Amino acid sequence: MNRPVITLLTDFGTSDHYVGAMKGVMLGICPDAQLVDITHEIRPYQIADAAFTLSQAWPYFPAGSIHLIVVDPGVGSSRRPLVAEADGHIFVAPDNGVLTLVQNSAAGFNARQISAERFFRQPVSRTFHGRDIFAPVAAHLAQGVRPEEFGNRIGDPVTLPFANPLRTGPESWTGTVLHVDRFGNIVTNFRWPDFSEVVRTRFEIGISASRVNVYYANYSSAAQGEFFVINGSSGYLEISSNQQDAASLLAVSAGSEIKLRLDPRHFQPETR
Amino acid sequence: MNRPVITLLTDFGTSDHYVGAMKGVMLGICPDAQLVDITHEIRPYQIADAAFTLSQAWPYFPAGSIHLIVVDPGVGSSRRPLVAEADGHIFVAPDNGVLTLVQNSAAGFNARQISAERFFRQPVSRTFHGRDIFAPVAAHLAQGVRPEEFGNRIGDPVTLPFANPLRTGPESWTGTVLHVDRFGNIVTNFRWPDFSEVVRTRFEIGISASRVNVYYANYSSAAQGEFFVINGSSGYLEISSNQQDAASLLAVSAGSEIKLRLDPRHFQPETR
Amino acid sequence: MNRPVITLLTDFGTSDHYVGAMKGVMLGICPDAQLVDITHEIRPYQIADAAFTLSQAWPYFPAGSIHLIVVDPGVGSSRRPLVAEADGHIFVAPDNGVLTLVQNSAAGFNARQISAERFFRQPVSRTFHGRDIFAPVAAHLAQGVRPEEFGNRIGDPVTLPFANPLRTGPESWTGTVLHVDRFGNIVTNFRWPDFSEVVRTRFEIGISASRVNVYYANYSSAAQGEFFVINGSSGYLEISSNQQDAASLLAVSAGSEIKLRLDPRHFQPETR
Repeated sequence: MNRPVITLLTDFGTSDHYVGAMKGVMLGICPDAQLVDITHEIRPYQIADAAFTLSQAWPYFPAGSIHLIVVDPGVGSSRRPLVAEADGHIFVAPDNGVLTLVQNSAAGFNARQISAERFFRQPVSRTFHGRDIFAPVAAHLAQGVRPEEFGNRIGDPVTLPFANPLRTGPESWTGTVLHVDRFGNIVTNFRWPDFSEVVRTRFEIGISASRVNVYYANYSSAAQGEFFVINGSSGYLEISSNQQDAASLLAVSAGSEIKLRLDPRHFQPETR
Repeated sequence: MNRPVITLLTDFGTSDHYVGAMKGVMLGICPDAQLVDITHEIRPYQIADAAFTLSQAWPYFPAGSIHLIVVDPGVGSSRRPLVAEADGHIFVAPDNGVLTLVQNSAAGFNARQISAERFFRQPVSRTFHGRDIFAPVAAHLAQGVRPEEFGNRIGDPVTLPFANPLRTGPESWTGTVLHVDRFGNIVTNFRWPDFSEVVRTRFEIGISASRVNVYYANYSSAAQGEFFVINGSSGYLEISSNQQDAASLLAVSAGSEIKLRLDPRHFQPETR
Repeated sequence: MNRPVITLLTDFGTSDHYVGAMKGVMLGICPDAQLVDITHEIRPYQIADAAFTLSQAWPYFPAGSIHLIVVDPGVGSSRRPLVAEADGHIFVAPDNGVLTLVQNSAAGFNARQISAERFFRQPVSRTFHGRDIFAPVAAHLAQGVRPEEFGNRIGDPVTLPFANPLRTGPESWTGTVLHVDRFGNIVTNFRWPDFSEVVRTRFEIGISASRVNVYYANYSSAAQGEFFVINGSSGYLEISSNQQDAASLLAVSAGSEIKLRLDPRHFQPETR
């Protein structure tokens, strides 16, 4: 029988004891768990970034995996702890919108409020539910406890406004930067299946004070210092520069505005 | 049968090959080990911080776990390598005080000097005992070799002066900052069981040039920008600010002085 | 039967989803894999540093281990993906020289070009072959697929010029800094077996604007602030300072020049 996979995604960093304590709790309950770190470097309290990172990782894990997400600025308040199911995967997370992109994309999403305190580590602290609630619940799920044993279905999980690009004219849109990665690649919220026509037509993107109007299939097709659009691995249109940090050079970050126009004749990006 | 757990706690960072080499050595000896990183981000040579971090992680692991600690400024000198036992856990570490808090809190602590060179990786380098001594010893322990096979008991392991707060008057104490975490939470050395009366009475804490005189049970009870005392997950009194980095804002770090007075009328924290 | 070991060495960092996605793909193919991170902190695109780090880690893993290296500035170009074998280990990497030090030192090195697309994740992106090609190939190898099933032998894998020190006189050499570690230890390209005579004779090393002319067997033998040569754990001559960051203090980094002279009378290091 396969060892149950539990992935971890937090904003705890890796210099404190927090992640270790959670893993200790889980191995005490489910000694055979295969623990996999997605990242612990989500900037503190950045729920939207955690939601994006989760959306880019969980679909590549085998069905049956359990995904533990602890980015939890509301710890100790009345925000609900959740167990959710989608596409054969299980998610354990605070009810703060971090599962929004799972809910938007995955089949058969449902969520339950965790209320069965018999699965918690006692006493439950007010500041570290990762160790005392979320980790033990994930480990009991890995041991085969069914989601319905943790609590009842809820119909109103919190969702975040991950806006699609706004259409501002017949062939113009205003979008946003979802994520900047370690290499400075800029992931936009223009989904590639919806905007792949940029490959086949003239276009212009206004980002920061610059314009980008060339598409390449590969990083290595670009000249040194050139900015270009690429069909990145994220499923979204990305803006990159070959072996350079495009985001730093363009001075953009998550949340920055992007304007796209497929016919560039009337396109006037504002200088900011 | 459960896979044996070996935790790792070092100041090696994660950008060099050091941790990988240690894991390779251990998997060569004990292929079934479950290797769990506590942290490798202890600041170089900071034994006291490693001792604190260890104290916050090991109790959450299942009995039988082996904890490998390599923060070892004295590598290559005559400092002794140790195998220690406490509360059903096993610790492998240099004899430099990093086990002080284990010794102070856990039942049945005993320590042995590792001398059985047949368990070492040969040749033993002068600079990387993590790879050549500590890792192979931990892996042999995980394979079932008994602690007594590594060497004789010693009665004088090195301990660090983790002072309790100093009582300076009928209701006043001077303490210190044990640790600042990633979020800027300030962990003091005031143990919560000893000082939980702050919840029920008036108190004033002098820290840096500021005063803190409010207690909240949850982060979310605080107003924006407010500093407060909380019963954090560490078991010590902590000073925090909701979704803000209290330590940076107050300019304190590990070792900073803290004054606590339960009756604040005569309390005059010095401006520093 | 032992769980197959797959090590990971990348420049992906740990704050994005990249490493997590690769691990998910591998666990979907080989649920029993023991995944071990060497490092993900190779500076982006620094193939030589990845080659050095790999050379310091892989020999400590048990035979049969699979080493997955993804430092891949040429992703999406015509650079070849490789499966290589040496000393009973298997390596999966882009053909960009990252395996140079394996090839230079290990017995029976051979390399194959990966061409069997049936083992790839489909569709294959142009920007993330770590997820779509290298990770699935490594996992299939861990499942027991033989290297020859992935493609044909090649005779011309890319190699990097890891130069040995250049002899500039009867007893003088010019070398280079291979690596600076977290502690500021300076790893040179003077192999210890070739230059261990520094222990037994007078020598002088010119590095940056400084001279180093003392050897110690242990860090703790040095006085505070003193720079010295040590037989580090890397197998190369290293330059260190006890509990101080020698590389910062001397302002050197990977690639810096080093001059060694065994008879120092005529040695004139240039001030730079």
